[in-house]
Amino acid sequence: MIELRSDTFTLPTKEMLEVIPTAVLGDDVYGEDPTVKELETLAARMLGKDAAILMPSGTMANLASLMAHCPRGSKVLVGDETDIYIYEAGGAVVCGGIMYEPIPTQSDGRLRIADLEKAFPDDASDPQFALPSLICLENPHNRKGGRVLPLDYLAEVKAFSESKHLPLHMDAARIFNAALALDVPVSEIAQHADSLQFCLSKGLSAPIGSMVLGSERFIEKVYRIRKMLGGGMRQAGVIAAPALFSLTNMVNRLADDHANARRLAEGLNKVEGIECNVDEVETNMVFFRIVDPRFTWQTFVRSAFHEGVHVAELGHGRIRAVTHSGITERDIDCALDIIGRVMRSGPMDLCQDS
Amino acid sequence: MIELRSDTFTLPTKEMLEVIPTAVLGDDVYGEDPTVKELETLAARMLGKDAAILMPSGTMANLASLMAHCPRGSKVLVGDETDIYIYEAGGAVVCGGIMYEPIPTQSDGRLRIADLEKAFPDDASDPQFALPSLICLENPHNRKGGRVLPLDYLAEVKAFSESKHLPLHMDAARIFNAALALDVPVSEIAQHADSLQFCLSKGLSAPIGSMVLGSERFIEKVYRIRKMLGGGMRQAGVIAAPALFSLTNMVNRLADDHANARRLAEGLNKVEGIECNVDEVETNMVFFRIVDPRFTWQTFVRSAFHEGVHVAELGHGRIRAVTHSGITERDIDCALDIIGRVMRSGPMDLCQDS
Amino acid sequence: MIELRSDTFTLPTKEMLEVIPTAVLGDDVYGEDPTVKELETLAARMLGKDAAILMPSGTMANLASLMAHCPRGSKVLVGDETDIYIYEAGGAVVCGGIMYEPIPTQSDGRLRIADLEKAFPDDASDPQFALPSLICLENPHNRKGGRVLPLDYLAEVKAFSESKHLPLHMDAARIFNAALALDVPVSEIAQHADSLQFCLSKGLSAPIGSMVLGSERFIEKVYRIRKMLGGGMRQAGVIAAPALFSLTNMVNRLADDHANARRLAEGLNKVEGIECNVDEVETNMVFFRIVDPRFTWQTFVRSAFHEGVHVAELGHGRIRAVTHSGITERDIDCALDIIGRVMRSGPMDLCQDS
Amino acid sequence: MIELRSDTFTLPTKEMLEVIPTAVLGDDVYGEDPTVKELETLAARMLGKDAAILMPSGTMANLASLMAHCPRGSKVLVGDETDIYIYEAGGAVVCGGIMYEPIPTQSDGRLRIADLEKAFPDDASDPQFALPSLICLENPHNRKGGRVLPLDYLAEVKAFSESKHLPLHMDAARIFNAALALDVPVSEIAQHADSLQFCLSKGLSAPIGSMVLGSERFIEKVYRIRKMLGGGMRQAGVIAAPALFSLTNMVNRLADDHANARRLAEGLNKVEGIECNVDEVETNMVFFRIVDPRFTWQTFVRSAFHEGVHVAELGHGRIRAVTHSGITERDIDCALDIIGRVMRSGPMDLCQDS
Repeated sequence: MIELRSDTFTLPTKEMLEVIPTAVLGDDVYGEDPTVKELETLAARMLGKDAAILMPSGTMANLASLMAHCPRGSKVLVGDETDIYIYEAGGAVVCGGIMYEPIPTQSDGRLRIADLEKAFPDDASDPQFALPSLICLENPHNRKGGRVLPLDYLAEVKAFSESKHLPLHMDAARIFNAALALDVPVSEIAQHADSLQFCLSKGLSAPIGSMVLGSERFIEKVYRIRKMLGGGMRQAGVIAAPALFSLTNMVNRLADDHANARRLAEGLNKVEGIECNVDEVETNMVFFRIVDPRFTWQTFVRSAFHEGVHVAELGHGRIRAVTHSGITERDIDCALDIIGRVMRSGPMDLCQDS
Repeated sequence: MIELRSDTFTLPTKEMLEVIPTAVLGDDVYGEDPTVKELETLAARMLGKDAAILMPSGTMANLASLMAHCPRGSKVLVGDETDIYIYEAGGAVVCGGIMYEPIPTQSDGRLRIADLEKAFPDDASDPQFALPSLICLENPHNRKGGRVLPLDYLAEVKAFSESKHLPLHMDAARIFNAALALDVPVSEIAQHADSLQFCLSKGLSAPIGSMVLGSERFIEKVYRIRKMLGGGMRQAGVIAAPALFSLTNMVNRLADDHANARRLAEGLNKVEGIECNVDEVETNMVFFRIVDPRFTWQTFVRSAFHEGVHVAELGHGRIRAVTHSGITERDIDCALDIIGRVMRSGPMDLCQDS
Repeated sequence: MIELRSDTFTLPTKEMLEVIPTAVLGDDVYGEDPTVKELETLAARMLGKDAAILMPSGTMANLASLMAHCPRGSKVLVGDETDIYIYEAGGAVVCGGIMYEPIPTQSDGRLRIADLEKAFPDDASDPQFALPSLICLENPHNRKGGRVLPLDYLAEVKAFSESKHLPLHMDAARIFNAALALDVPVSEIAQHADSLQFCLSKGLSAPIGSMVLGSERFIEKVYRIRKMLGGGMRQAGVIAAPALFSLTNMVNRLADDHANARRLAEGLNKVEGIECNVDEVETNMVFFRIVDPRFTWQTFVRSAFHEGVHVAELGHGRIRAVTHSGITERDIDCALDIIGRVMRSGPMDLCQDS
Repeated sequence: MIELRSDTFTLPTKEMLEVIPTAVLGDDVYGEDPTVKELETLAARMLGKDAAILMPSGTMANLASLMAHCPRGSKVLVGDETDIYIYEAGGAVVCGGIMYEPIPTQSDGRLRIADLEKAFPDDASDPQFALPSLICLENPHNRKGGRVLPLDYLAEVKAFSESKHLPLHMDAARIFNAALALDVPVSEIAQHADSLQFCLSKGLSAPIGSMVLGSERFIEKVYRIRKMLGGGMRQAGVIAAPALFSLTNMVNRLADDHANARRLAEGLNKVEGIECNVDEVETNMVFFRIVDPRFTWQTFVRSAFHEGVHVAELGHGRIRAVTHSGITERDIDCALDIIGRVMRSGPMDLCQDS
């Protein structure tokens, strides 16, 4: 099976796993695990932030960040196509009493300043309005094809958020992909956010974990909230050790994923019945549509799966294929062969037993 | 001052107030106020519902209804231009852990079934999605010009909600205006909702209060939540008595408000620099825009206020004028005179001291 | 029926109700009801606070105060026998994410400083502990017999709360009874609290409402929260007008209630089978126990009710009788006659159909 | 340093860590990690429950269980000395709107049925009361000295909870210690709970994780809540693999911890100035008090730490020492030597720089 559903399926490498048995461990709930401390220090340094904290998931990383920024009853301005709004089960609503204000997302992942502006009531003293307390960006933007937000746009949103006296949080799950696409250090991206999170478990291929970064004071708040949510883990060095390996050894190889994504897009572009815009492929994601009327996205996904290529729909009928450390150039060529064959044959007659 | 900002400004009539001192009272928190009971019985009967309960406001009426329907962490599908979403301070988020999913609102106040459908994930067992638990309609629709939802549309949404095994709540603050516009009893509208609320304090001119209606079991839940929110009131007969008077004596006179609204719209339509679609005036609201480039909506509102006509902006630069029991046909003519004069003179040079 | 269950049953007087039809009204949600403004100004002045706000109930008054003081995830230190902890349906938990830490209540209503001190963890930076954000007192103390907290005790708790950098909120529903018992102006009590609430609808006999008092900034927060909870009311002057009458005319007559309570206690003390400590009667409440083994509290309450005296149990088998404006000296004597007769006859054989 | 503060400090053994690099992994957020599935199946089988789910911590295990059982605004009856009430940062309040009702804890960890009974209001229809929705027990009881609840007591509470139509949740973090003390399989304890959680990271010495167990339907609910809280982890097999090793290989060795605890207690009992009840040592915990007036618990803890024995205070001045896989019989003897020396010498003159 060629697994292209997500880069969350990345398996840790042999070398990465072999650092675990020799990692120095302690009880991280008491702040006594040296490997976790080393990871947090390294991550903060790489991203140019004061402090960092390890979380069991990107979902908790975003949730705790929102709770640390936003008082109960305030609004977070967040793109209507973001993972925070769509895929995180309303956590900030339930655990924080925080209201999402979904802002229309442009095709390249940007939120327009004018649309953000509209979320601020003319009269902030009018008690019928919940008031904004945070602006969120997603970068790269998952459901918008892994598109990368330009640095000058980030600066513009940061300036806007400062003019409104609001912090800016970036869901930068794949920030190393963004930095590679822009050919800048991650800290150049991170500088525009008051807080951000990135995932160790996607392209970086660590088994578990995400990092939240920000000021000392902000990370202290997140630390309290992490405990309350149940994200404090004991000998967390067993997941920090492979993550340290990832940060040190797995960043450079993301270039292969980007090259593979482009190769895949170029190949799909040539397949009859498929629409794929190669120019929109900036990182490790390829979005495409099935325009052959014999198929729905459902029958295409099932037929491809049956033949050995696993992809997923990601909203509005768009199909997403994600490259990662488990996918070689050869896999891409093989996937293109299979997809080509599927499109020529038409949808399989599979029972609808999903 | 000709007060056209809202029908919430309606003052109780002399006759209405004079029923208060002789009302039979008791402690309604113990369920012992006979006047409140009489009001609740009458309201339930008029709307054809099993039970009713008095609330201190429409905001609490909607909030308690949402909390009674929706478990923590579920989503309420609600129009993006509704009062619930915009003007109720995120109450259901804070007090209920309920997530709003704002659905695009059509120009006549409808939510399209296709848009409602999109809020349901393909795979309800996937834990990353908050799941819908309630559909809300607003009827008549305030920010869409007091437009009235047709009965067959209501039937269609009800059928859809049933197919999804979800209840339907109607924010029917001005249901008597809707019924008048459709020339049907209110119960014909109410039959399509599992629960609804209407306001005693708008066109009906009672000083305080809204009613929630639904099944016995639903109203019991609302009753518990009302207590928790602090909406249980002691000798509430002092507000139920004038409300009873309103339900009995103030419904028929809404026809005057509708006639006045139409008269105002027709007049505004003839004023140069103003755009007002007379065909959209179905109840007691008139929406218009200032297209004379000398004005912004702000300078128009301030100039008109200075001359004795009080109107308000209601989103996207649209100006709203609402007719009610405190406005006579003569007031309408007078308001038209003033507005005509303002438009001819151009904006006043008033210091921006709002 | 001699109604002694609570002073919430007080009916407004004829004179009080007659001020309603002539009250000047406006839309208080827009801050435009002059009668409400007059009430708020008078209440603030009487209690020596900067600002006041009208609420539909004491429950919302406490709820909004707690929400204004306490961030999500913090603890309110509150007596384990207080109305806030027992009778307010967990509102601060649900709407505020605020944790109650019940503190043992002494027999005179005090919370010991040592017990408050214990609620503060040795290490406030340890994230496993929710941290205190507010201290609450109840004065007079309902479930502890209407006992009044001494002024020097209030000063002591205020000093303690300041040493902890926490505000102090007083649930002073019956503050005028407390002031009468201490023979001081209400402001001498109120000065020891950062915020407090009192009820217009208990001894003061107004039909509906409670007041929250505190600093300008605090009342602004409460005002926002009141709107969110649905406590904003339109022509609220119809309840503010009788409340103004109460504050002006009904305070002095509380002395009759205190005298009647003492008369009742002295009478009960002489009834065989009843235990009533006269010395603990400081305001308008009498607590007693049935020690005659033929009775349970349930059979006593039912028997007395059958004979025309309505009392209620208030925890731990204690029976409460409350005097108020609807009870005369003659009613007290009559009640004593009836209770004496009930105790002599033994419990009635009533079917258990409560 | 002899580390006796907690068994959360247990380090994974070499053998345990060496299973990690060869574990079969997958993305557990998609339910595709076979090692996690194997762990969940084994745990469910051992405890005799239908289903199990891996959580990143005991805190989240309890939090998600409470949220799955209790609707917003209901009460969980929980011991006032339990970890849930004291050490979990009010999570169920914040994330669930669930009210804790702390029940007095007996010295052996039991909650008396009579005390549980008192938490149910006479009149459940009275809306001023939050209603109980869950009973929680802690077994063994941490702050009560690791005491084990007898099986017949568990049966009694279960019968009571059933009579009230409420579920029973057991915080059984150290259930294998309890089973060892009672000399029964863990399933005999677990059978009395509708749901329970136990920790892999305490005596069992796995690095990270806790298990929640219950019915299929309950675990499905926990699974959704886990995602929302951010407890879904990707290649979670890296922590499930050592946990599987623990469940298979580390259970029997708990007997050493119990023997060491008893040896420590017997030794402490003979030290002048220390009070330690040997009879109360049922598992791997020893509680003792310093009664030598030269010491406070603080100066004792600091002096012992300076000499190489690390213990901690656990409420009310009681000092706790916990035995675990990192502590040998020789360590116990050495610790006794040191403590004896400290008690003879008196408190050290250490600057108060903790």
